[in-house]
Amino acid sequence: MRTLRLTLAYDGMGFDGWQVQPNRRTVQQTVQQALHRITGKEITVIASGRTDAGVHALGQVVGFRTASTLTCDVMMQALNAHLPQDVVVLSVMEAEDGFHPIRDAERKTYRYVIRDGQLPNLFCRGYCWHVSQRLNVQAMQSAAQRLLGTHDFSSFESAGSKRVTSIRTIFESTVRREQSRGVGEEFEGDQVVYEVTADGFLYNMVRAIVGTLYDVGRGAVAPEHMEFVLQACDRKSASMTAPPLGLFLVNVKYPTHGS
Amino acid sequence: MRTLRLTLAYDGMGFDGWQVQPNRRTVQQTVQQALHRITGKEITVIASGRTDAGVHALGQVVGFRTASTLTCDVMMQALNAHLPQDVVVLSVMEAEDGFHPIRDAERKTYRYVIRDGQLPNLFCRGYCWHVSQRLNVQAMQSAAQRLLGTHDFSSFESAGSKRVTSIRTIFESTVRREQSRGVGEEFEGDQVVYEVTADGFLYNMVRAIVGTLYDVGRGAVAPEHMEFVLQACDRKSASMTAPPLGLFLVNVKYPTHGS
Repeated sequence: MRTLRLTLAYDGMGFDGWQVQPNRRTVQQTVQQALHRITGKEITVIASGRTDAGVHALGQVVGFRTASTLTCDVMMQALNAHLPQDVVVLSVMEAEDGFHPIRDAERKTYRYVIRDGQLPNLFCRGYCWHVSQRLNVQAMQSAAQRLLGTHDFSSFESAGSKRVTSIRTIFESTVRREQSRGVGEEFEGDQVVYEVTADGFLYNMVRAIVGTLYDVGRGAVAPEHMEFVLQACDRKSASMTAPPLGLFLVNVKYPTHGS
Repeated sequence: MRTLRLTLAYDGMGFDGWQVQPNRRTVQQTVQQALHRITGKEITVIASGRTDAGVHALGQVVGFRTASTLTCDVMMQALNAHLPQDVVVLSVMEAEDGFHPIRDAERKTYRYVIRDGQLPNLFCRGYCWHVSQRLNVQAMQSAAQRLLGTHDFSSFESAGSKRVTSIRTIFESTVRREQSRGVGEEFEGDQVVYEVTADGFLYNMVRAIVGTLYDVGRGAVAPEHMEFVLQACDRKSASMTAPPLGLFLVNVKYPTHGS
């Protein structure tokens, strides 16, 4: 038996999230079915973390054990031949025995895309949150910077998931305005992108942060409000949870020796 | 009664093309339903040309007559409020009496996007043709240039559509390689874009040209082959019809006095 590590991208629109659930189309089940067709074995794959329905991945990391002797390149080609169009394997590599995608993850980066403008970007409508109000990026960036460091993030944790601790460390937290990418320059325009890197995230944490940044961006609250929310340690102090479609798991970093 | 002119964008993936057909979701029917809800009247809208199932529009032009007294701005807002997410009205303007979107069109521009690389661009998979072979853009551009001018384009016309003449004039015909636009730089890469402007197009003409350019790009035929195809005036001399998903109607130009 050997342990393989996949990097996966998927379009979350057509999935009920990562985790296997009866009678639902999920990413985990889809990958396991492809592996079953390739190896003839029931294989359980473990991701660095679950993503919710509608959330996308540019670089989800997945591990599994297999007796297959296919080379990594052939395994990648076989998986991409068997997977549907909305999941792509970007790399396959050997992992150390005992590699565990959740436990071993050192840092994760998420990106959230907000399209702020009168018209939605027709060809990216499943990949952003469209708001009609023009957002103040400078105020949002000022608020985002206040999240840096080690804090109790329980104000940004949705109920329904008990963790040993709600303390996390955010290494990067930036808001920028960038040219939106669409299929044609006709649809290009501005979009606001939030990118956050941490040693881990609580349930719905990024989407609750984005909801609060949105209230800062539209002028409902001041950037300093972010400190109040953080200190309150109460989900009610933060704003609404932003919708899933704008959220992307960008990458997951592991210690060099483990990869 | 007044005549209004709309510029529309739509995502062709979810439509069985432009034209109303029984029990099919088409763009024409969708726009007419929205107008019915707004005005209470059955209104027939005419487009600059039909687009096939799967073909997209960045700037389709549509005309219709109405007794509505709504201003253009209010009409645009009302339409966008009533249209589904995959159709957007980009502008509404008054047109001269007798404006006819098909007859009055002077030039049309189409764009065709080919993703050439090992992996598809996951988030643009409905908006390009993915081929795994790296294409020779210089050879394709050389072939594309041979189409410029006034010719009988019947080699590029699919059966099933009788026109008075198959002579058309191509004003621009260029192939370029550009940075592909996706939702994240992780998926950026090269794509090959063909853009063509003419005074009109025969049925499936752009897709038959692209099929032939593809054969040039992959080295199956030389750029000079394009002249042979053009002179043959026989559909069998050209290559396969490229799939619809990569095709975009970019814009339609009318004489200044008609707009």
